Amino acid sequence: MIKTPSPSYSLIMRVELLTKPGMLGKVTSAIGKAGGDIGAVDLVGFKKDITIRDITVSVADLPMGETVVEQVMRIKGVKVVSVTDRTFMIHQGGKIEIKNKIPLHSREDLSMAYTPGVARISTAIHENRERVYELTIKKNTIAIVTDGSAVLGLGDIGPEAAMPVMEGKAMLFKEFGGVDAFPICLNTKDPKEIVSVVKSISPGFGGINLEDISAPRCFEIESQLRKELNIPVFHDDQHGTAVVVLAGLINALRLVGKRFEDIRVVVSGLGAAGIASIQLLLSSGVRQIVGCDRAGILYRGRKENMNPIKEKIAEKTNPEGIRGTLSNAIKGADVFIGLSQPGVITGGDIKKMAKNPIVFAMANPDPEIMPEEAGRYARVVATGRSDYPNQINNVLCFPGLFRGVLDCGAREIKEEMLLAAANAIASIVTEKEISEDYIIPSVLNRKVPERVAQAVREAAIETGVARRG
Amino acid sequence: MIKTPSPSYSLIMRVELLTKPGMLGKVTSAIGKAGGDIGAVDLVGFKKDITIRDITVSVADLPMGETVVEQVMRIKGVKVVSVTDRTFMIHQGGKIEIKNKIPLHSREDLSMAYTPGVARISTAIHENRERVYELTIKKNTIAIVTDGSAVLGLGDIGPEAAMPVMEGKAMLFKEFGGVDAFPICLNTKDPKEIVSVVKSISPGFGGINLEDISAPRCFEIESQLRKELNIPVFHDDQHGTAVVVLAGLINALRLVGKRFEDIRVVVSGLGAAGIASIQLLLSSGVRQIVGCDRAGILYRGRKENMNPIKEKIAEKTNPEGIRGTLSNAIKGADVFIGLSQPGVITGGDIKKMAKNPIVFAMANPDPEIMPEEAGRYARVVATGRSDYPNQINNVLCFPGLFRGVLDCGAREIKEEMLLAAANAIASIVTEKEISEDYIIPSVLNRKVPERVAQAVREAAIETGVARRG
Repeated sequence: MIKTPSPSYSLIMRVELLTKPGMLGKVTSAIGKAGGDIGAVDLVGFKKDITIRDITVSVADLPMGETVVEQVMRIKGVKVVSVTDRTFMIHQGGKIEIKNKIPLHSREDLSMAYTPGVARISTAIHENRERVYELTIKKNTIAIVTDGSAVLGLGDIGPEAAMPVMEGKAMLFKEFGGVDAFPICLNTKDPKEIVSVVKSISPGFGGINLEDISAPRCFEIESQLRKELNIPVFHDDQHGTAVVVLAGLINALRLVGKRFEDIRVVVSGLGAAGIASIQLLLSSGVRQIVGCDRAGILYRGRKENMNPIKEKIAEKTNPEGIRGTLSNAIKGADVFIGLSQPGVITGGDIKKMAKNPIVFAMANPDPEIMPEEAGRYARVVATGRSDYPNQINNVLCFPGLFRGVLDCGAREIKEEMLLAAANAIASIVTEKEISEDYIIPSVLNRKVPERVAQAVREAAIETGVARRG
Repeated sequence: MIKTPSPSYSLIMRVELLTKPGMLGKVTSAIGKAGGDIGAVDLVGFKKDITIRDITVSVADLPMGETVVEQVMRIKGVKVVSVTDRTFMIHQGGKIEIKNKIPLHSREDLSMAYTPGVARISTAIHENRERVYELTIKKNTIAIVTDGSAVLGLGDIGPEAAMPVMEGKAMLFKEFGGVDAFPICLNTKDPKEIVSVVKSISPGFGGINLEDISAPRCFEIESQLRKELNIPVFHDDQHGTAVVVLAGLINALRLVGKRFEDIRVVVSGLGAAGIASIQLLLSSGVRQIVGCDRAGILYRGRKENMNPIKEKIAEKTNPEGIRGTLSNAIKGADVFIGLSQPGVITGGDIKKMAKNPIVFAMANPDPEIMPEEAGRYARVVATGRSDYPNQINNVLCFPGLFRGVLDCGAREIKEEMLLAAANAIASIVTEKEISEDYIIPSVLNRKVPERVAQAVREAAIETGVARRG
């Protein structure tokens, strides 16, 4: 695969150049030749005969970064003073902090926010526990809970290593949803213990976002918590993914003029995301879904590589009971949804699909099939990546969803709320705008969380799970 | 007791007055007569013949507030438009929030703070777990953990009602120590479960501040957590109180010219604060301490109202084995430290103390003896209240202490660090400044947390518990 420079590998190189014409040109050429992609070039200062500049360079990986620096160092009259890794730099000391919402400068401030005044607030909540929603952060705060067992594509890297991802998630919640989210990374992988810990810490939170917990444990943990808690529990890898997949599919089907009732869908991957997507597609009216995993097609009675949730799914899918490999399944299918791993299908597989094939290849960062190849045969191609059109990413869902959930004090998250969220996301792309390269709005589109929040709130009120109207 | 107006009962009354001389005077007189204490009087606007003002009034309690409003309503030409309770107002939606430390506006921002860039950070921590201190919020973040079983003077009011107090505490940590503290209010009172939950959530935190957990469970929970965690565990009700009591006593003894070795100290109250204060005084060289609780003087072999920790304390205190009531104990004592409840001693008791009696009456908000009465007989009187001189409050200790602990990545909190904190607090009051009314610095003095942090950091390095120098 070609290595494309990415801002996630981004360096700032401070260089001192002899002040004479052509020097900067030599440097930028050297960077380009080594594969680096130049961003900002800042003038930092002058010394006698010397110009100091900060050059931001995106590279594809660390070796490419080293090559870039070496090539620049070889130029006569150029000195590399320092090289900073921007991604590591912004992570120094973490990415979020606590901020006080009111001043605390005088004795009067202290006596209202803390003792003795705060005793009146505590007493009011003790007398009517529901007032905790009005008088504390619970109203706007959720916990992002993980055990670090299935982090990104990295797998079971543990709770400490999961922290930067959960902090990033917390940032997205705040930036796009105005939700205060706090990362809770757990030192245990025992489902019973996870349930017990989350129950214990729940009083201060208005909702729980489960994250990066490996399947099938995640299903058990989520369903148990939903039973035992009176605040909403959301597992982003399941429900968030299912919502954005559905949102993308609504528009893709609109584009090609097919109906949910008529299509045949193949889902590759039966982890958290695959299972939840299948369930939401069934609720949306899809009648023919075939699931596949490492053991091939899922069918009723399969014995290999099973768990209780796959058994349930086997009952509801693959009505014709076909067996075999993913390649068999994909023949004649209208939609391929990849939530598995790189390289599981080929252009040849897509060739055998029904007319106007729709391919969502969402494994991250490397998709089930690269868009360049898939695009030769498919009508619509979507991925989870930001560097191709049609980025189907959970961030389209979770900030707006929890905004809506918290605004109405929802007790739980009903399937109707997930469907409402998917339709809200899809609705941002208008009939006129919709095209092969634009079936889903940008993750940076601020209208998305706003519209998702409103739709979710309305659905919560309609289904009777809202505390407030 | 006389009811004194306090900012913790503070109203903002919006009134419309006929625009003519003397109207405001009538209003302010009525407020004063009803017992209210007038703060700001803001001009909000004008209508035809009418002036609109916001009057801030402190009252002693809700009935006094009602009387104030009623009296103002009775004045001809005056209309009370609205009455706002300021303490409730500032608590709306809670007092803290999450803030992002870096921007999240472009795809480039997203790809560094979140996927794919964050995967590089997670991998780096997975390869070397200690880097979690450098690359996540752990470095500057602690959990404030409570089960809501002993909140302020309110008792077992539960985790939801404890939230406003923990949020207030988080504010103090941030304002005075720059520490990011997050409240975790637990839905369980079982010591084993509390230990297990705190262990589970510990990976993301650089320290644990236990708070308002009732004795004797708090001793067991704290000592178990200290054993099992590699981050510092601090129980503010124990250690924080002990530190500020010791700080006050250092200066009080300096003032009256007595030595720790020679004094006799009576401690009333054998809960978390009393026990920990006794232990720290013993470490400071005090030889004669007598503890008292509801069952009277604590002595070796006492059977009534005991628990394992009291048994330990009985071994180390009361060397003469005296028995009887608090009144008996106090005869001839140099120092009385009250960490119990209002009204347990009288002026008559203080009369029987040794020369230059020192009385710390720290029950909150109503002390063991009111300072007006104690002041007639004692040389030095201190309380926990902000409306009398010598306010001995934990906020002098905990923000600076955790600042120091986090700055050096301390693995635990050694007694040497507590002693260092107490001496640092005491040292703010110079030899020249020290007086009967000034033995302890103000809780608003910014030099305190700074000096405490430095002293604690140095002590941590000296005792070998610091991760960094």
